[in-house]
Amino acid sequence: MKTQTFPPVDQSHKKAFGPITTPERLLFGPGPSNSHPLVLKALSLPPIGHLDPFYVHLMSEVQELLRYAWQTNNRLTLPMSGTGSAAMEATIANSVEPGDTVLVAINGYFGNRLADMADRYRAEVKTIEKSWGEAFSLDEIEAALIKYKPSVFALVHAETSTGVCQPMEGIGELCHKFDCLLLLDTVTSLGGVPLFLDSWNVDLAYSCSQKGLSCPPGLGPFTMSSRAESKLNSRKGKVPNWYLDVSLLNKYWGSDRVYHHTAPVNMNFGIREALRLLAEEGLENSWQRHLANAQMLWDGLERLGLQLHVDRNLRLPTLTTVRIPEGIDGKAFTLHLLEKHGIEVGGGLGMLAGKVWRIGLMGYNSTSENVEKILALFKSELPKFRDNSDVAA
Amino acid sequence: MKTQTFPPVDQSHKKAFGPITTPERLLFGPGPSNSHPLVLKALSLPPIGHLDPFYVHLMSEVQELLRYAWQTNNRLTLPMSGTGSAAMEATIANSVEPGDTVLVAINGYFGNRLADMADRYRAEVKTIEKSWGEAFSLDEIEAALIKYKPSVFALVHAETSTGVCQPMEGIGELCHKFDCLLLLDTVTSLGGVPLFLDSWNVDLAYSCSQKGLSCPPGLGPFTMSSRAESKLNSRKGKVPNWYLDVSLLNKYWGSDRVYHHTAPVNMNFGIREALRLLAEEGLENSWQRHLANAQMLWDGLERLGLQLHVDRNLRLPTLTTVRIPEGIDGKAFTLHLLEKHGIEVGGGLGMLAGKVWRIGLMGYNSTSENVEKILALFKSELPKFRDNSDVAA
Repeated sequence: MKTQTFPPVDQSHKKAFGPITTPERLLFGPGPSNSHPLVLKALSLPPIGHLDPFYVHLMSEVQELLRYAWQTNNRLTLPMSGTGSAAMEATIANSVEPGDTVLVAINGYFGNRLADMADRYRAEVKTIEKSWGEAFSLDEIEAALIKYKPSVFALVHAETSTGVCQPMEGIGELCHKFDCLLLLDTVTSLGGVPLFLDSWNVDLAYSCSQKGLSCPPGLGPFTMSSRAESKLNSRKGKVPNWYLDVSLLNKYWGSDRVYHHTAPVNMNFGIREALRLLAEEGLENSWQRHLANAQMLWDGLERLGLQLHVDRNLRLPTLTTVRIPEGIDGKAFTLHLLEKHGIEVGGGLGMLAGKVWRIGLMGYNSTSENVEKILALFKSELPKFRDNSDVAA
Repeated sequence: MKTQTFPPVDQSHKKAFGPITTPERLLFGPGPSNSHPLVLKALSLPPIGHLDPFYVHLMSEVQELLRYAWQTNNRLTLPMSGTGSAAMEATIANSVEPGDTVLVAINGYFGNRLADMADRYRAEVKTIEKSWGEAFSLDEIEAALIKYKPSVFALVHAETSTGVCQPMEGIGELCHKFDCLLLLDTVTSLGGVPLFLDSWNVDLAYSCSQKGLSCPPGLGPFTMSSRAESKLNSRKGKVPNWYLDVSLLNKYWGSDRVYHHTAPVNMNFGIREALRLLAEEGLENSWQRHLANAQMLWDGLERLGLQLHVDRNLRLPTLTTVRIPEGIDGKAFTLHLLEKHGIEVGGGLGMLAGKVWRIGLMGYNSTSENVEKILALFKSELPKFRDNSDVAA
């Protein structure tokens, strides 16, 4: 055996870190949420090849269970090999051609992101805006569709930055009446909030793995109707994003199983198990559980004298925004909860930074025991952060 | 507690799959390779928040160990939240502006992919080509740099489709002499083959998690020199890819830790552990181990009368291409190995489909015991697939 001599190796970045240790956390922020133990077990199975017949079979299972979770028959339903933001970008990249008019409804942080993305894909971006904490009415949407004649209308079903759940009745019909595709953000609703993509006439939707599905972050469920597929098939140029190009991904996730990229097989083991557990519970039961625990949280917080940011009829059961009371340092409070109690609660994002806390009760974490835990902590710890009281060291 | 009535749920896609089970596999294909057990253990740790101080600290550890593995001081060294192909696209998306001339050296499947990607980012794509199984000479590269005056030259260090390791001496100097950025594919070399990004004057590089690092697929290590950063900072328009935009990612991975997307925290637990184990072994030892086991494999295959596709002086220690002998159905043989022996060996890709097998010995899998196992199987099973012999049922 030859031994080779290598040029000298620079050792300056060779750090002798110890084996990984992680702190215990209960994650009640906007996500990730805690994962189901069986999902974590599936994640740690030895990887297999991405073209292995067993894996190819598992892909079909994931697709089928995603169709159930989203209530859609869309053939092109699959997890993108990235986080929810990658799936969001996939909906834009595959549906928008340069010069297309894209109308984005903005009532929070993620509407802004959709507009930013559409702009990068050279759309003519038009927007309608509402206060962060309100929803759009059918009239407002119709007026904008008439005014701008967009080819894609992008809307957020569950605004993770505000805690608003957008009522969906009639929107899809309107879009189709005006020959426009409906693109929907369901990042914080999938698995936890009623979603009926097909009966709502949604054409493109995306979500994430780490909220209602009780899986770690890393995959971005994506789906596309046959109407959206037709637009993709008739586009003039290539999709200007190779990784997220559904016309290529279709050959791997469709019947041919042609290599596109090496799939993140372990993350797919995890989401397969997460979706299986959701089906085992049943969508109706999961939705009901999320709603019941959210109502318990809302009632409890209001009993503590706290104000919720969103009207009850528009509130997301998965994510609750609580107004930070005058005179309280919201960030100091959440840091205290994290460091002293191992509990993560989210801060505000964008326009609501410093104004609200965000409490997530999603997937595996949506239990009455967890609600009791949060309420007890708000009751015992929050007074320590009121004006003129000494902050816990 | 109110109970809500939901519209009826369509149960047609609600399949009652059992808990996940996976077959045992030894992965000697082009990747994924088997993961280190400690990496799989890290993957299954409960997730924590992507803005948790603990996680932020872990990000720095990952970055530092990646710098060591790549032998670079680049500040912008981080794992993209997607597979190696996403990191590949990130190098193109962030360095190419519309109209830029990009020169791609193509001697295999992944050179073609780089050209496809550059085209999607509206580059003027020029190519130089070599047979699949050969490397480029310094003279060939210099002539093309003079002829095309590219602003980016993209080259594959370790061609996963052919098993060729491109000699790197002098290429970076040439690129800089002609004011061109050097972009390098190190997907199949990181961790297993000598790599000296800084002394080779490489400006952009990408890799994957599932080969030399012994981690499952799902992350794409990415790095960018200060020269490449300058080009990014002076570009006229936004990077036309939101998810992979390093000017945004810089705010999360740099000092500010501003939210960009929800990081795949568990995959990062895994790669942190994988990189720690690589540092513990030491790069020199890992490179030597890969070379020694590859030489043992090469010698053994040649003793069995098999022909290797690449000249010994250009062979990758991580991936060996073996010519499929006349009269043998290559695909039937690999399917037999997979189904009867739980052993994955890769087939050819693109132009080499049906012509070669690809045997990977990467990371955790590069051991002399594994080489013996492969050689024994080729010796005992291959004769069953020769002409006129009965194929094992």
